[in-house]
Amino acid sequence: MASPMILLLRPHSDTRQWVARDHYAVWPGLPIAEYTDMYGNRCQRLLAPAGSFHLEACSDVQVPSGVEQAPGAPFVEVQDLPAETLMYLAPSRYCESDRLGGLASEITGDCLPGYDQVHAISAWIRRTLAYRAESDPTPVSAVEALNRGDGVCRDFAHLGIALCRSLSIPARMIVGYLHGLEPMDLHAWFEAFVGGRWYVFDPTRATLGGARVCLGHGRDAADVPVFTQFGPPVIPSCMKVSVEEIAGSQH
Amino acid sequence: MASPMILLLRPHSDTRQWVARDHYAVWPGLPIAEYTDMYGNRCQRLLAPAGSFHLEACSDVQVPSGVEQAPGAPFVEVQDLPAETLMYLAPSRYCESDRLGGLASEITGDCLPGYDQVHAISAWIRRTLAYRAESDPTPVSAVEALNRGDGVCRDFAHLGIALCRSLSIPARMIVGYLHGLEPMDLHAWFEAFVGGRWYVFDPTRATLGGARVCLGHGRDAADVPVFTQFGPPVIPSCMKVSVEEIAGSQH
Amino acid sequence: MASPMILLLRPHSDTRQWVARDHYAVWPGLPIAEYTDMYGNRCQRLLAPAGSFHLEACSDVQVPSGVEQAPGAPFVEVQDLPAETLMYLAPSRYCESDRLGGLASEITGDCLPGYDQVHAISAWIRRTLAYRAESDPTPVSAVEALNRGDGVCRDFAHLGIALCRSLSIPARMIVGYLHGLEPMDLHAWFEAFVGGRWYVFDPTRATLGGARVCLGHGRDAADVPVFTQFGPPVIPSCMKVSVEEIAGSQH
Amino acid sequence: MASPMILLLRPHSDTRQWVARDHYAVWPGLPIAEYTDMYGNRCQRLLAPAGSFHLEACSDVQVPSGVEQAPGAPFVEVQDLPAETLMYLAPSRYCESDRLGGLASEITGDCLPGYDQVHAISAWIRRTLAYRAESDPTPVSAVEALNRGDGVCRDFAHLGIALCRSLSIPARMIVGYLHGLEPMDLHAWFEAFVGGRWYVFDPTRATLGGARVCLGHGRDAADVPVFTQFGPPVIPSCMKVSVEEIAGSQH
Repeated sequence: MASPMILLLRPHSDTRQWVARDHYAVWPGLPIAEYTDMYGNRCQRLLAPAGSFHLEACSDVQVPSGVEQAPGAPFVEVQDLPAETLMYLAPSRYCESDRLGGLASEITGDCLPGYDQVHAISAWIRRTLAYRAESDPTPVSAVEALNRGDGVCRDFAHLGIALCRSLSIPARMIVGYLHGLEPMDLHAWFEAFVGGRWYVFDPTRATLGGARVCLGHGRDAADVPVFTQFGPPVIPSCMKVSVEEIAGSQH
Repeated sequence: MASPMILLLRPHSDTRQWVARDHYAVWPGLPIAEYTDMYGNRCQRLLAPAGSFHLEACSDVQVPSGVEQAPGAPFVEVQDLPAETLMYLAPSRYCESDRLGGLASEITGDCLPGYDQVHAISAWIRRTLAYRAESDPTPVSAVEALNRGDGVCRDFAHLGIALCRSLSIPARMIVGYLHGLEPMDLHAWFEAFVGGRWYVFDPTRATLGGARVCLGHGRDAADVPVFTQFGPPVIPSCMKVSVEEIAGSQH
Repeated sequence: MASPMILLLRPHSDTRQWVARDHYAVWPGLPIAEYTDMYGNRCQRLLAPAGSFHLEACSDVQVPSGVEQAPGAPFVEVQDLPAETLMYLAPSRYCESDRLGGLASEITGDCLPGYDQVHAISAWIRRTLAYRAESDPTPVSAVEALNRGDGVCRDFAHLGIALCRSLSIPARMIVGYLHGLEPMDLHAWFEAFVGGRWYVFDPTRATLGGARVCLGHGRDAADVPVFTQFGPPVIPSCMKVSVEEIAGSQH
Repeated sequence: MASPMILLLRPHSDTRQWVARDHYAVWPGLPIAEYTDMYGNRCQRLLAPAGSFHLEACSDVQVPSGVEQAPGAPFVEVQDLPAETLMYLAPSRYCESDRLGGLASEITGDCLPGYDQVHAISAWIRRTLAYRAESDPTPVSAVEALNRGDGVCRDFAHLGIALCRSLSIPARMIVGYLHGLEPMDLHAWFEAFVGGRWYVFDPTRATLGGARVCLGHGRDAADVPVFTQFGPPVIPSCMKVSVEEIAGSQH
């Protein structure tokens, strides 16, 4: 039986990344349509046939080799936040910020409000949760991961987001590729809005180094349909992710 | 200390309701700004002063006296859904549709896919959950309400939404006013997308009768900030809602 | 025969103006729907009946008593303009900026690029064109008004917009009310994007003084459908505009 | 001196076309950013260096081999048009629909309102205007092309759009590639909204045959910045367009 799918496997150019080359193929050939969701992500829709099918998405993307950091960047008062960031203050499926206010205050107690709070949250998560190699078949939420004491990159990001929001700092999920990740796979991290712009934080990594390609962003993993499938389950028999540096590609 | 707030207390005209007259006032006078969120809701932002303040929003709205029903309206296959309805398939903060698939199938087992499934879900909720007069200070989710066995209108709506989505039926939260509600208060219900359009369902009510004014809609209560407050809690010392029929109003 | 109409007669709240009270009525009663156009304007649609009909729109709007001015505010290089301002660089129906480059350079020859150029353009228009009391039944364009040597406020605004755009300064049309205008009527002026934000300019007025309520904005009058009618012409037998200051209104 | 540019040279996937492979390069290497305009077009921004530079955009796009036609498809009354089509009723820079009502009625006098009117307009343009091989350095408008009696594909499209809008039929400009065009170049045609959807019309072609790839759409050429340049003019020393069929590409 055919199975409808929504995918988010094609990075798009914006002001932060430039897709110089792009290739997306499906066997057997079948109709694919693309639409832009409410976050500006470019999602692909298709009806996966019964039996096996293959999908390959490959892009050459020019990105900076690292991310900007801004210790001391100040907290933006809620009344001064740009209207388009306000939705990232609300709790979402996997980020129960309405249940974590006490913990966030404890973690960030003596930090300067803003960037330093988010940095402290990110470091605390890395210190406190054990990293799991295998993700759960069913995603768990920030509170569930916290209670269990471990998680994958997605869970670490969810917890970071939930803790930020509980302090009235807008925070959002990013799913994409990180150059140099070992073993290579899709990766998830988050961004927080402090000092008037979004900054990258990655609680599963000791440093923020490495070129990052964004596939999509949203309030949490429920909004970033990298691979969403409806009806009878599709079993990915094999998924390979590789990220390589192109010689001379960086300006 | 002042407290930033986001409110959603002003119905706006669209193709379904016409605001003929509108009045919105705050004492003491303070700056208010309005913005449109990603759902098209018109939200008000203000910085509530320390101490008490008063807010009054009053509108004359022309709406149909009842809602359309469509027994038999068919399920729309995911691949045929309009792109803008797809976000209402994903789980959200208070609607853990990813945990309720089994229950939804059980409830709707012998229904025609589509409107009749949603109707069965709505009736099942009404039959199964006890209605609570008082809402919790902290909102609970669909699964939490289900486990507890009772809830307010918001919880009934969340559960309806979550069960629909688990069947791949887009469903969204509506917050507004229902004429004739006893005791009068803000009310919450939901809409499901079947047969090519959105239909109203209200699991707290035996019938769908009564004129309904929509204040806002979204994926769940987290997206419909009727009264959201940041920082030190603002205690509503008194909240009065009244809905009256205007003589000779147009139906 | 009935005649479809699009109207833009209802100011809406945003960060610059607050609609405290609002009233909109039509006799005989007929269905009206409201939609938001691509600029965020709230437009009303209705099917005007054959014969005469009456329409009244009335609002209490809180606005600042004057507009900000910023002599010296610098020109923003095209490559640094926010993406959402770029559409205001293109020529439009009544603003043939592609034909006015030479004139704009002449007028602004020795000005500091930016605010001062727009100010010089505005002053030049006021000095050069004669003000007409009566508007043409068919709108004329900036170039046509320039050739004829006179125009109404709409034409003055169109010419200001066209000249700005020919210098790569984003400029847009505003239609609304100006307190103290003699005789009172709907008014049109324009905004230019310099120094990182939009500033008001009004080439029909010696000063920028006076409280201004915005009904709508767009690239030119073709985009601001204050009163657009399709099919057999509707003859406004009488149109009255009044603007009054409310005692004790907030500034 | 460097020259800011906006380009629209990269087709994107949607429900009507699928970009399977894509390549976009600039020499010398320089930063490019992409943004989505108000029509959903993906535009590229860059600062072209002084001296010469090279740009190459190349895509494999899967499209139907022809376009749908619908003789008899009815006119949609203005009051029934979807809100998002209404902007395509207004006159625009190169489509002075407000000046062409009489001519449009004459051309379509005995046609069934709707598709047949647009077809008659398209045929009339092809019959009446001489096709020019070379476009003007400065674009002319529909009325100017009509008065002169000739034009390029862009002018034919503008005139078709203007005539449709004067009959209250929404019409929009499409710029893209047409397989088999001789000599190959960028092409422009238009779409009209009749019978509840957009249909393709191409007044420069005897038939609608041929695979069409859309680069962008808008109200007229001013909105579709295939190649827009600000400041000192950039002289394209050479522009090559080629469109080839990929063997076995069509499903």
